[in-house]
Amino acid sequence: MQIAIALFDRFTALDAVGPYEVLGRVPGAETVFVAERPGPVRNDSGTLALVADATFAEVTRPDVVVVPGGPGQTPQMANETLLSWLRAVDATTTWTASVCTGSLLLAAAGLLKGRRATSHWLALNAIKRYDVEPTGERVVFDGKYVTAAGVSSGIDMALALAGRIAGDRAAQSIQLLTEYDPQPPYDAGSPHKAPADLVAEHRAHSRHPQP
Amino acid sequence: MQIAIALFDRFTALDAVGPYEVLGRVPGAETVFVAERPGPVRNDSGTLALVADATFAEVTRPDVVVVPGGPGQTPQMANETLLSWLRAVDATTTWTASVCTGSLLLAAAGLLKGRRATSHWLALNAIKRYDVEPTGERVVFDGKYVTAAGVSSGIDMALALAGRIAGDRAAQSIQLLTEYDPQPPYDAGSPHKAPADLVAEHRAHSRHPQP
Repeated sequence: MQIAIALFDRFTALDAVGPYEVLGRVPGAETVFVAERPGPVRNDSGTLALVADATFAEVTRPDVVVVPGGPGQTPQMANETLLSWLRAVDATTTWTASVCTGSLLLAAAGLLKGRRATSHWLALNAIKRYDVEPTGERVVFDGKYVTAAGVSSGIDMALALAGRIAGDRAAQSIQLLTEYDPQPPYDAGSPHKAPADLVAEHRAHSRHPQP
Repeated sequence: MQIAIALFDRFTALDAVGPYEVLGRVPGAETVFVAERPGPVRNDSGTLALVADATFAEVTRPDVVVVPGGPGQTPQMANETLLSWLRAVDATTTWTASVCTGSLLLAAAGLLKGRRATSHWLALNAIKRYDVEPTGERVVFDGKYVTAAGVSSGIDMALALAGRIAGDRAAQSIQLLTEYDPQPPYDAGSPHKAPADLVAEHRAHSRHPQP
């Protein structure tokens, strides 16, 4: 089972590596980081580079595709090379997944039309223009499309997906080995829980249109 | 404030990228991935490569050092280049941190002597031989030494550390932007919660001596 994780300039690292760490442990999984060109791809801050081991042209029939988000998503909305690759591989995937603003890329490729999906909380409003019903949920399954909310939510998404692919026991085994027993020291991980002025501050500075 | 994240062959990706994603967002932070040689460093499965942008020789006075774990930790226990770098930078760090079996490397460098620390649950027993008091806690602060349990726990560790470095509001802001509001679909993330036979199976196959 081939799992392709797409990379593009200024992606958010944890969007890609969270699901990678979980899905790569599914029995029989063969993961590959894929991008327009092979070699290092820099993240949003420029201080991390993940190597793309294959090009889009080389990965034509992955069973699962995962699209991360990040500030680099905005220019990718007009990158026909990425969007047509997404449409092409989606024709034969078992699961097409995204994390964070990666769902805006799936939407721009026309893959989420009429479906329920989620995204980073700051981008939930933006996804409406693609005929997508945004939900505030952390992980959304709609048919073979699986979307996750912001950044860290890709871990929850990947565990749920691992369960669908390989069964509950395999997913629990992955959770145990990655010791995923979260104990955040604060309770500010969603706009409903964080201090209201922090939420307002981030909305004011977002690159996405806010409600 | 420079935050150095050490890489070595067959590290576990999320051990490094979880803390990176959080600590890299601390105001004023400058993160750098550092290794014996510059360039791509492959993870435990060989399917992911993170680029080391600096060598140990080039990073001599980081304010914070983070050491990940992974299967590659075992051969590193005898790598005097890494261990002496850890001792050297520790002399001036504000915080010396580890994730997963990275604490065994800090212990082998002699930095945790007489201290309380944690590690991946499968390695908790192994750390005792270094005159370290193992705890079952997810994140342990002892003086300037901060150790986290397995793989995903580095995110909790980094958020707690972000709070100590930059204050609660800055840490909450990072939690909100990374949407860290975990909702695991299973409750098997620790040996106390996972099915007993799964725990026993992993203990039987561990490279670390079990109790």
